[in-house]
Amino acid sequence: MNSPFVQSNVSRDQTLRDRAARVIPGGMWGHQQVGALPKGYPQFFASGSGARVTDVDGHEYIDFMCAWGPIILGHRHARVEEAANAQALLGVCLDGPTENAVELAELMVATVAHADWTLFQKNGSDAMTTCVTVARAATGRRKILIAKGAYHGAVPWCSPSLVGVTSEDRTHLMHFTYNDIESLNAAVAEAGEDLAAIVVSAFRHDLAVPQELPEAGFAKAVRAACDETGGVMIVDDVRAGFRLNMGGSWEVLGIRPDMSAFSKAIANGHALSAVTGTDRFREAANSVFVTGSFWYSGAQMAAAVATINELNRIDGPALMQRAGQRLRDGLDEQATRHGFELHQTGPCAMPLVQFVGDDKQASLGDAFCGEALRRGVYLHHKHNMFLSTAHTDAEIDRALDATDSAFAALSKHRPAKTGAPE
Amino acid sequence: MNSPFVQSNVSRDQTLRDRAARVIPGGMWGHQQVGALPKGYPQFFASGSGARVTDVDGHEYIDFMCAWGPIILGHRHARVEEAANAQALLGVCLDGPTENAVELAELMVATVAHADWTLFQKNGSDAMTTCVTVARAATGRRKILIAKGAYHGAVPWCSPSLVGVTSEDRTHLMHFTYNDIESLNAAVAEAGEDLAAIVVSAFRHDLAVPQELPEAGFAKAVRAACDETGGVMIVDDVRAGFRLNMGGSWEVLGIRPDMSAFSKAIANGHALSAVTGTDRFREAANSVFVTGSFWYSGAQMAAAVATINELNRIDGPALMQRAGQRLRDGLDEQATRHGFELHQTGPCAMPLVQFVGDDKQASLGDAFCGEALRRGVYLHHKHNMFLSTAHTDAEIDRALDATDSAFAALSKHRPAKTGAPE
Repeated sequence: MNSPFVQSNVSRDQTLRDRAARVIPGGMWGHQQVGALPKGYPQFFASGSGARVTDVDGHEYIDFMCAWGPIILGHRHARVEEAANAQALLGVCLDGPTENAVELAELMVATVAHADWTLFQKNGSDAMTTCVTVARAATGRRKILIAKGAYHGAVPWCSPSLVGVTSEDRTHLMHFTYNDIESLNAAVAEAGEDLAAIVVSAFRHDLAVPQELPEAGFAKAVRAACDETGGVMIVDDVRAGFRLNMGGSWEVLGIRPDMSAFSKAIANGHALSAVTGTDRFREAANSVFVTGSFWYSGAQMAAAVATINELNRIDGPALMQRAGQRLRDGLDEQATRHGFELHQTGPCAMPLVQFVGDDKQASLGDAFCGEALRRGVYLHHKHNMFLSTAHTDAEIDRALDATDSAFAALSKHRPAKTGAPE
Repeated sequence: MNSPFVQSNVSRDQTLRDRAARVIPGGMWGHQQVGALPKGYPQFFASGSGARVTDVDGHEYIDFMCAWGPIILGHRHARVEEAANAQALLGVCLDGPTENAVELAELMVATVAHADWTLFQKNGSDAMTTCVTVARAATGRRKILIAKGAYHGAVPWCSPSLVGVTSEDRTHLMHFTYNDIESLNAAVAEAGEDLAAIVVSAFRHDLAVPQELPEAGFAKAVRAACDETGGVMIVDDVRAGFRLNMGGSWEVLGIRPDMSAFSKAIANGHALSAVTGTDRFREAANSVFVTGSFWYSGAQMAAAVATINELNRIDGPALMQRAGQRLRDGLDEQATRHGFELHQTGPCAMPLVQFVGDDKQASLGDAFCGEALRRGVYLHHKHNMFLSTAHTDAEIDRALDATDSAFAALSKHRPAKTGAPE
């Protein structure tokens, strides 16, 4: 029997989840698996426009994840899409690169302060693995130092999960604590003559812990350690690149890396990543073999040229900083008024919002995000969020109207916590 | 002084190479670096259409590389591009997957004979690394057996280059000889209780050596070794997938893998790869963490759905087999007539053409390809080539007109070799 009533109660999202559960292990994989998000979050999306995304059931949200970073000029930015389409109309994948590869390489070298050359890939993981491979080729050494808890990709040598990973995949991986010079120097000493590279994120953006901007002394210590030992200084700008500073995220500190990895926002959602490096590593970069079937496609490179040019033209990082500050100030004011205290960390354009006194599961954050979602605002309670240049004052204010109401709902159902920051 | 005469003698390709040399190490990287190709081959391309590609200087070629595999329905296939554009118009990258992910997963499970589930990535290397990670997660073992000389990706655990790779990246990699049961069984015995997986290419398509189809006995031995030891049988169908058989390249042998990797042709040039597996490995596939910023993009999945449906509709593999046979027969007839002998190997849809008696540098093949290129046919002398369903009889015949003339030019400049096959 066909019952229209029963069918009408099943959301499109649920129908798709049921279908997905049969043909995709766990129903979905990786960071866009909805399981880790608060109840009520949709798994499947239909479209995006500017600062908004719409799920498959037609619910529209002001989007503070920006596809987890790739969207930096807003969804469906006209200039970017025109540039990508113009190249795609000529051919998706050819027997060699297109002129876009040269144009983008020149633009990267002109834009990124330390860059004398660049190479393009598809994933952030590709870019980070390329950096490490070039560093080992250049130095003939093996040890790679990364900060404890830092995310540098989802491949065996650096994956946050050890399931299916062998201990040999990590033999030459060593750890220090971000912003802790003593731990850095201890790791450098332990690596000794075998130090190939020190890898640092643009800032500390580990999952579910307060974010930390890099301290000037720490940044100098990383540079000094590399200068003294001949190790390669690599900034992982995959997540932050072009959101904080067009010239590279550590330009503000006056510290330049030897190599950097970019991805996420480089082409406003189109699949692309890049490695940049200084002349010292040009020959090593030419000596390694890294490639992929789709790494020469022109459309994504055309999109990147349009994205970077537009960000330069409008001073994108300043716009996102301003929008993020407006959001941060608004949320702080609302929290206080409703009897909560927030701990907002990281750059304003990539905020992490936590509740002071929240439990380990971030139950308050979870409940708050759920309330905000029902009011049309898509937030994350454990992962840093992302602003875009489409987050105008008006969009931020609309989002703040919704969060004000979300705080009010939260304060009705749960006693406000007033404990000291953890 | 501005000299239009000098400028007019410099090709657009050379101008771009000069610019690229400044900002890209070695001027280009990876498999689309033109350095390994015969003199006169262009580095940069402008467009493609059907079975043709056009370089940046406006020279059009009948394309027998198909972007090194991704193009399977011809460049700019209308149905594929319409499907991709329809999704791209809604948004490039969202906060979660689109409905296309479910539709494509269902289609993969319906199309690939052994598949109970699937996962999507961007690169062939992503898919192979995912297969190996899932196999290790499922078995709790470490050893991965691959054929000597086989290409399974450009990441440290399997890269053909050891530059920048540590010995630990390969600790658990062991080798056998393709189609050699004795060497396979020896490697299986050596791996012993630690055998996680046996990885086999759809057929032997190693660079610059004659291709080999898998022998039935060898295929059975791979399956038997996995069945006896609990190791995971992985077919690397990245290069051959959907070109030989829609159900998987080993369907013709009656041997089904536990997992397979697909990429290249899956979306007619759009960046996508996939892992398929049986129910036995569903939980393991759900237990590993593999992800990428662009892995959920809908446009490439929409392109894949359109590509697979179209290949099913027109029986793409049969068309490519037929076109490849016409090319093979034509080339053989011409070679004989001009006093050469060819050794053509592999499936007709993915041919490797070598000259009997050629030297190690494939000088005759190199010269022949150069002559063919000047006559508007883009071939490769060391890597297998690729047919597409846009290679109609008329296109093959036009290509054969050009190769006939290329053989004639070759026979004028060089004595025909008549040595026995090597």
